[in-house]
Amino acid sequence: LPALSFRPLAGIPEIRPGDDLAAMIAASLGDASTAGLLIAIAHTVVSKAEGATVDLTTVSPGAQAIELAAGQDKDPRMIQVVLDESAELIRAERGVLISRTRHGFVCANAGVDASNAGGSDLAILLPRDPDASARRIRGGLAALGHGLPPAVLITDSFGRAWRHGQVDVAIGLAGMDALDDWRGRTDAEGMELKATWLAIADAAAAAADLARSKDSREPIVAIEGLERFVTAQDGPGAAALLRPLQEDLFG
Amino acid sequence: LPALSFRPLAGIPEIRPGDDLAAMIAASLGDASTAGLLIAIAHTVVSKAEGATVDLTTVSPGAQAIELAAGQDKDPRMIQVVLDESAELIRAERGVLISRTRHGFVCANAGVDASNAGGSDLAILLPRDPDASARRIRGGLAALGHGLPPAVLITDSFGRAWRHGQVDVAIGLAGMDALDDWRGRTDAEGMELKATWLAIADAAAAAADLARSKDSREPIVAIEGLERFVTAQDGPGAAALLRPLQEDLFG
Repeated sequence: LPALSFRPLAGIPEIRPGDDLAAMIAASLGDASTAGLLIAIAHTVVSKAEGATVDLTTVSPGAQAIELAAGQDKDPRMIQVVLDESAELIRAERGVLISRTRHGFVCANAGVDASNAGGSDLAILLPRDPDASARRIRGGLAALGHGLPPAVLITDSFGRAWRHGQVDVAIGLAGMDALDDWRGRTDAEGMELKATWLAIADAAAAAADLARSKDSREPIVAIEGLERFVTAQDGPGAAALLRPLQEDLFG
Repeated sequence: LPALSFRPLAGIPEIRPGDDLAAMIAASLGDASTAGLLIAIAHTVVSKAEGATVDLTTVSPGAQAIELAAGQDKDPRMIQVVLDESAELIRAERGVLISRTRHGFVCANAGVDASNAGGSDLAILLPRDPDASARRIRGGLAALGHGLPPAVLITDSFGRAWRHGQVDVAIGLAGMDALDDWRGRTDAEGMELKATWLAIADAAAAAADLARSKDSREPIVAIEGLERFVTAQDGPGAAALLRPLQEDLFG
C-alpha cells in the first residue's frame, strides 16, 4: 500500500456565507494532481459557507427549552435551536442533550456548535444535507480541476458509548466508499477475516482531526494513500454508515 | 504541525507464543530514531505472543453457551470462551453477543477472535492487561534502542452505537496521552473551543487500520507526526478512555 498521510491545507480564510469552498480548496492545492486524493472538511466551515447558522437574538425559547436550561448554566435559546434540529430527544442528563438529528445522526446537542465570531452569538447547525454538500464541493473541484476530482469528506466530532472523549466521524461523503466490506473474504492464509466491515470514512475522519492544531485555523485536511477507496461516482455517501435505530446493538 | 503519516512495518513474521515483539519491531525499524514515534499494534499479535489463546478442543460448553449457540450457526465452545471473558453479558441478539469484558471494554464477543492457523481451532483472547502489554513492549524497545523509546498503542476493531461497520480503538497504550483536553481553552480568536476532549489514541488506532492491507500480514504500523502527545512516562494508558457504565450517555 502507499503511505497514508494527512496534511492540513494552508491559507483557508475565515469562512462567510456564500463563500466558494471548492475554489478555496483548489487555490490551496495549486497545480498538484487531485486524483485519488481525499479532502476532509470540518463541518463548521461548510455550515458557515451554506448559511446553516442561526442568530440567537432571533430565537424565542419555548417552555421545554427553558425547563431544560434551568439550573444547567445553559442558554435556553441555544437549547431551543438544538430541539429544533432534533427529530427525537434521546437523553437529557447533567446538562447534556443527546438527540437523533433530522439526518439520523445520534450525537450531543444535535451537532449544534456555538460561535461568537464577529461579535454576534451564532448557533452553527450541521449542513442541511451533508452528503449533498460533499457532492456539491466535489462537483466544484471537478469543474475547476483536471481529470478525476478528489473525494470529499465532511466531519464532525461525536461522543461515543462507554468511552471518554470525542472522535471525528464522517457526516458527509462524495467519491469514496464509506465502508470496506470483507465479509466472507479470506486473508493471505485463506482464513476468513474477522473484523470485516470497516467504517473507513469514519477512520479517515478521526485521523484528519489529529492532523490539525486545534488552536489554529486548519479546517481542511488533504489525505493521500486511500486511492483504493476513491470512486469515479459520488456514491451513496456517509448515509451508508447510519444503522437504523431498531437494528442498533450497542446503543 | 508536522505531517501525520502511517506506514506498516515490513518483515513481521507469523507470531508464536513467547515471541519478542519489541525485538521484531526494533529489527524492522532499523537505525531510524524512534523518539516521538507511535507504534500501533493489532492486539491479535500481542495476544499470540503472550499465549492469550484457548485451544477449543479443551473447552466444554456449559448450558448457557449451548443455549446461545442454538440456531445461530455458532460454535458453543467459542461462545463459552466469550462468556468466560465477559464480566457482564449486555446483549445477545441475532447471533451477536455484546459484553463488558473483565478490562471494562464493551464490545462484540468480548473481543475474542477465531483463528485456525496451523490447523488447530484457537480462540484469540484480548491480552490480559493491554496497558501492561504496551508498557512491556515499550520497555523492550527502550532496552534495545537509543534514547526515548516510541510510544506503543495496542488496537482492536470495535462496533459502534448507531453506526455500521467497525473502527479500531485503543485498548492498550504506553508513552502517549490517550486524551487531549482542551476544555476551557480558547482558539486562535480567543473563542472557547467546543469539541474539546479529544480521544487521540482512538483516532490514531482508527487510522492505523487504514494503513494496512487486510489480506496481507501487516499488524504493526509506525505513526509519525504525533510527537506532541508522546511522553517520557508510560502514563495511565488506554484505561483513561473507559467511561464508567453509570456515567454513560450514549449506550
